[in-house]
Amino acid sequence: MSKLLLLAKKFNCFYLKGLATGECKPFIVEGIQVGLIRPDVLQQLLNFPEVFSVTSEYVELNPAFRNYEERTIKVDEVLRKLHSDQKFVTLKGWRNECYEVKRHFSSSSLLQMDRCATCLFGIMNYGVDITGYVKHPTLGICIWFQKRAADKQTWPGYWDNMVGGGLSVGHGILETALKESQEEASVSRELMKNLVSAGSVSFFYESQRGLFPNTVFVFEIELPLDFKPINSDGEVDEFELLPAADAIDRICSSNFKTTSAPVVLDFLIRHGIINIENEKELLRIIELLHVPLQTLYNNDITKKLSLGIKENGESQPVE
Amino acid sequence: MSKLLLLAKKFNCFYLKGLATGECKPFIVEGIQVGLIRPDVLQQLLNFPEVFSVTSEYVELNPAFRNYEERTIKVDEVLRKLHSDQKFVTLKGWRNECYEVKRHFSSSSLLQMDRCATCLFGIMNYGVDITGYVKHPTLGICIWFQKRAADKQTWPGYWDNMVGGGLSVGHGILETALKESQEEASVSRELMKNLVSAGSVSFFYESQRGLFPNTVFVFEIELPLDFKPINSDGEVDEFELLPAADAIDRICSSNFKTTSAPVVLDFLIRHGIINIENEKELLRIIELLHVPLQTLYNNDITKKLSLGIKENGESQPVE
Repeated sequence: MSKLLLLAKKFNCFYLKGLATGECKPFIVEGIQVGLIRPDVLQQLLNFPEVFSVTSEYVELNPAFRNYEERTIKVDEVLRKLHSDQKFVTLKGWRNECYEVKRHFSSSSLLQMDRCATCLFGIMNYGVDITGYVKHPTLGICIWFQKRAADKQTWPGYWDNMVGGGLSVGHGILETALKESQEEASVSRELMKNLVSAGSVSFFYESQRGLFPNTVFVFEIELPLDFKPINSDGEVDEFELLPAADAIDRICSSNFKTTSAPVVLDFLIRHGIINIENEKELLRIIELLHVPLQTLYNNDITKKLSLGIKENGESQPVE
Repeated sequence: MSKLLLLAKKFNCFYLKGLATGECKPFIVEGIQVGLIRPDVLQQLLNFPEVFSVTSEYVELNPAFRNYEERTIKVDEVLRKLHSDQKFVTLKGWRNECYEVKRHFSSSSLLQMDRCATCLFGIMNYGVDITGYVKHPTLGICIWFQKRAADKQTWPGYWDNMVGGGLSVGHGILETALKESQEEASVSRELMKNLVSAGSVSFFYESQRGLFPNTVFVFEIELPLDFKPINSDGEVDEFELLPAADAIDRICSSNFKTTSAPVVLDFLIRHGIINIENEKELLRIIELLHVPLQTLYNNDITKKLSLGIKENGESQPVE
């Protein structure tokens, strides 16, 4: 099989396999599915019945919580307990940086949650990535990559895209792009005027840590030949500029951050470097770069709960 | 609602609505689903039991046909009969130009069928589109559009992308791009060296004519400011160059070919003209530009038939 299709299947391992097993239960807040919960997480949530009610079909956040603030506080208390009890690997990396919890990107947020915990609940994750590239006179398009610092909480020492970051509570998309490009690679404000929004990629990855339904707002910037990224926040060990063919090898290698590969693949496809003449699985790959996350949680349980229709088909309030 | 999301829903009307009704039955060839058949078409196929066997679950091409050639001939005979009996609007436009019938793009073809008939069977349709644009010093990115000739079989007199064409039997993708750009817009071979492959869009549209699960290989070409497309095959009435903002109005207007809008939307997103700052439904729109057609027909019936498993779960040859 095409190695790029294999890669696209790898970063969609949950979408292609985990989802259909039915092992994960919908996570419902205010009658709306906002996530999926694995059996190991569900087991721990059973210890907090005043916060999470667990049925055979789904896990629901106590609907008695009145608003965004109360939901946020109650969930945070549980997570801090699980953190101090060392129940989950991912909670070791407590960030004090929160993500919004909502059904899809343009809907209103129901609560916020520390970013290290969102993968326990399969919460939709939004980020920003910037591909920095140069048009080399003889080598053609070359792409800048960063090597993540060895002490990063996630994917330490792995190769990654030049600039990237999660969309935290209170920060805009363009704002995040500007901030991260400054902190991670010292791209000047002047150069950043050449930043181009180029769409998004969406995929659903699973690792030992949890579930990652990720959507990345994709940006690109053409850089001068003599530009060199310089890290200023200590989160990057080194940068390297690679011609397109080497970039393909890099993203396929085992020391590349799996969840950053989609952005590079998308860039290489948009610029014609990967095309139907050299990649016969191009169409499958493109579809796997845009899996329908925005409607994935628009499921039967959400409908049933919001309509108050029970199994037998009668319409009545949800108990 | 966002007018661009409305547009994306319009060219995916079958994907978002028709598909779930279950009214259309899978069309099976050699144990593989290659299409979907509407009730009005199914009704006519009942008159050809030696070619099509119709069950409550699906329509199957007679598996006794031995090979590609025999399948092609037998189906063609039925279609010519339906054509001469004037059973379907779409068959009026007999093309003498065939499309391959296969499960997905990279699988081998099972038969060929006149292109006007493929929408009766919901056969996956592949095409090529080239967006011709200029970088104007004051107006920014401007896009060339064509007005289709008033005597075209489909979408006569509608506005359309600069160059486009279906992928017929025996023609390659790049070859089709080169041929169409020559015939439709007289883009010189020299200029065509600047052609860039930029991925694909996929969507599932339905009209009175039939079902259109369309995948378009997307190309773009930056043209000189003084370039003017000239039609040489009589299929275009006029060309017009529009600044990006006007291009958005054009594709949303009722006189734009609905099934060409995805290519323009994708172009405008890839070039940052439509972005999350000015279109809050950007993510939904991008997902609707890449619906998973390549795996859509990989369904339960195909699995059941290929495994020979009957309703009761026993494994045995298909009758």
